[in-house]
Amino acid sequence: TKSYQIAVLSGDGIGPEVVKETIKVLDAVSQTYVFELHYHNALIGAVAIDQANEPLPEHTIAVCKRTDAVLFGAIGDPKYDNDTNAAVRPEQGLLALRKELGLFANIRPVKAYNKLINQSPLKENIIQNTDLVIFRELISGIYFGQKSISADGRAASDLCSYSQDEIENIAHLAFQAADKRNKKLTLIDKANVLETSRLWRRVVQSLAAQYPTVEVEYMFVDNAAMQLILNPKQFDVILTENMFGDIISDEASVIGGSIGLLPSASIGTHTALFEPIHGSYPQAKGKGIANPIASILSGAMMLDHLGEHDAAEAIRDAVLHTINEGVLTPDLVKESTYSTTDVGNKIANHV
Amino acid sequence: TKSYQIAVLSGDGIGPEVVKETIKVLDAVSQTYVFELHYHNALIGAVAIDQANEPLPEHTIAVCKRTDAVLFGAIGDPKYDNDTNAAVRPEQGLLALRKELGLFANIRPVKAYNKLINQSPLKENIIQNTDLVIFRELISGIYFGQKSISADGRAASDLCSYSQDEIENIAHLAFQAADKRNKKLTLIDKANVLETSRLWRRVVQSLAAQYPTVEVEYMFVDNAAMQLILNPKQFDVILTENMFGDIISDEASVIGGSIGLLPSASIGTHTALFEPIHGSYPQAKGKGIANPIASILSGAMMLDHLGEHDAAEAIRDAVLHTINEGVLTPDLVKESTYSTTDVGNKIANHV
Ligand SMILES: CC(C)[C@H](C(=O)O)[C@@H](O)C(=O)O
Ligand SMILES: CC(C)[C@H](C(=O)O)[C@@H](O)C(=O)O
Repeated sequence: TKSYQIAVLSGDGIGPEVVKETIKVLDAVSQTYVFELHYHNALIGAVAIDQANEPLPEHTIAVCKRTDAVLFGAIGDPKYDNDTNAAVRPEQGLLALRKELGLFANIRPVKAYNKLINQSPLKENIIQNTDLVIFRELISGIYFGQKSISADGRAASDLCSYSQDEIENIAHLAFQAADKRNKKLTLIDKANVLETSRLWRRVVQSLAAQYPTVEVEYMFVDNAAMQLILNPKQFDVILTENMFGDIISDEASVIGGSIGLLPSASIGTHTALFEPIHGSYPQAKGKGIANPIASILSGAMMLDHLGEHDAAEAIRDAVLHTINEGVLTPDLVKESTYSTTDVGNKIANHV
Repeated sequence: TKSYQIAVLSGDGIGPEVVKETIKVLDAVSQTYVFELHYHNALIGAVAIDQANEPLPEHTIAVCKRTDAVLFGAIGDPKYDNDTNAAVRPEQGLLALRKELGLFANIRPVKAYNKLINQSPLKENIIQNTDLVIFRELISGIYFGQKSISADGRAASDLCSYSQDEIENIAHLAFQAADKRNKKLTLIDKANVLETSRLWRRVVQSLAAQYPTVEVEYMFVDNAAMQLILNPKQFDVILTENMFGDIISDEASVIGGSIGLLPSASIGTHTALFEPIHGSYPQAKGKGIANPIASILSGAMMLDHLGEHDAAEAIRDAVLHTINEGVLTPDLVKESTYSTTDVGNKIANHV
């Protein structure tokens, strides 16, 4: 039987709770489809700072590099957020990990589930049948450019930079995805103001010739933030840089009705990482109210990546079944008495 | 009688059409409330490139500096958008003007009109009674930092920088506004990643002590893009940097049902400028379908700035009356036969 090595980085907040349910589901599906998953836990984030004095211990990087895929929970702790002078912060762990593993493309599919359509703040006719996917560049741009702070602390800067190669790497993936989907790619940028955006536009313009079946559209990020709500169905594949992708993809989560539904895959040169797009949600920690579906669907994306497509599909079926039966956490059903574990059990039993 | 000098920069696309209606309304209200407005036209944007070979002629700056306020239309032309190598572009005119006039604070109020509530892609219960205002920093950040492109054109960068003074200037205005309104200020930043955001957070934290009546909240921009749609009523005054403000305020326009409703004021050291937040909307140019309300409400904000509060209020009343009577352009009422001019006339007659 095939066997896969999985690094498990549960991280902070609700991370450990949702990852636990995901492993439950993965274990169940691996029995049905006969393959083995071996888990290797490692520290990251605030818990890593607490236990090992650094947000991303060497050991964690080593574990990730020798495994087939990384299952990631969440990162972040409020005790660092308002401490603007903190020398070490949990997010550094995630950013450093992305860089170390070369995770250049973060892929975030967004879908409206019929059963949940009334959960969205958007009207039914606006979101029905929305099916888009965001390709966000993940290891460059303003996230990783040089930062500086003046000696007197009265001035600061962040550099946003991009190279043609960085853009080409992710653009090819996005074009290929568009070609397999509805053949439309929208580049989101701010080419009327930013030099880096003009480089993005030039690179995408020149690659377009290699994908003649794909229609390419260019949209300024301010307009895109509006269009995503006015008419999300106009999008198929969205391609964008790191910072805009962060904003646009969280915004897009409102289409599905809960950020607790959205998985993501990050494709890298050394490995791939799978994480829910929600954060550590510290207020919910330990209460059993966290929605495990985003993490479980991230697990399905991981199985796809490993080539276990049937098992991945089985998880998605089980999630749909659970949604249709209404076994859902309170983010989706007010006053729901179903807990994180209940939802995980339901999905695990179904696969 | 009091008299004011107004620079009129109609600009590109639908700019001239909406500004024309605004002047009609301003002229009407100035008769009722007995003051004089003297207009001084000047070129900016693509029309300025066409007629004077530069997006912001010296003469235009001079006119703006010696007038009491600037009434601005729109800027931008599609012939420049996809030409990533264009040496001169219309937007440079607007950015240079903001810088020349020291327009450091762009103020964008967002309201849901009861009569138009069903126009929004958002559900009624989500947007009803929303009343927020965005304070966007306008002359610094990544818009104005150093840009570079490598000799071989394969790498580009944009620098985002902020100084404590720049942040304090606009933060004071935002705190004062919050104090007069619902006493809540939300700083939108990305302090978990950006050095400049940490500076923003530190500065706002330290000013907060001077405004003890105002509750201060800090929100990451990705979460804010989501919260603005999930629950816009949670916001009162939003304060943010230039690029985030551009994105968040266009996104917020969906609350009102049409970007054609949203005015803005830009407060500066030399003068103040008033413009609709919509752009040049070139597809609508010359068709008589452009909504003049955003520009007309910008005119009202201009009168407030000049101290003519009763006249400003009269314009807002007339706009409300026109909305309630349904004399509206097709962006708000599908298949409406009312034109830009009809709406302008209706409002002008009412004041
Ligand atoms: C935690 C934070 C650094 C991270 C990001 O901004 O990339 C998160 O918001 C995300 O989108 O994965
Ligand atoms: C036209 C463009 C340069 C401008 C901006 O990005 O500031 C516009 O989008 C705005 O918001 O006024």
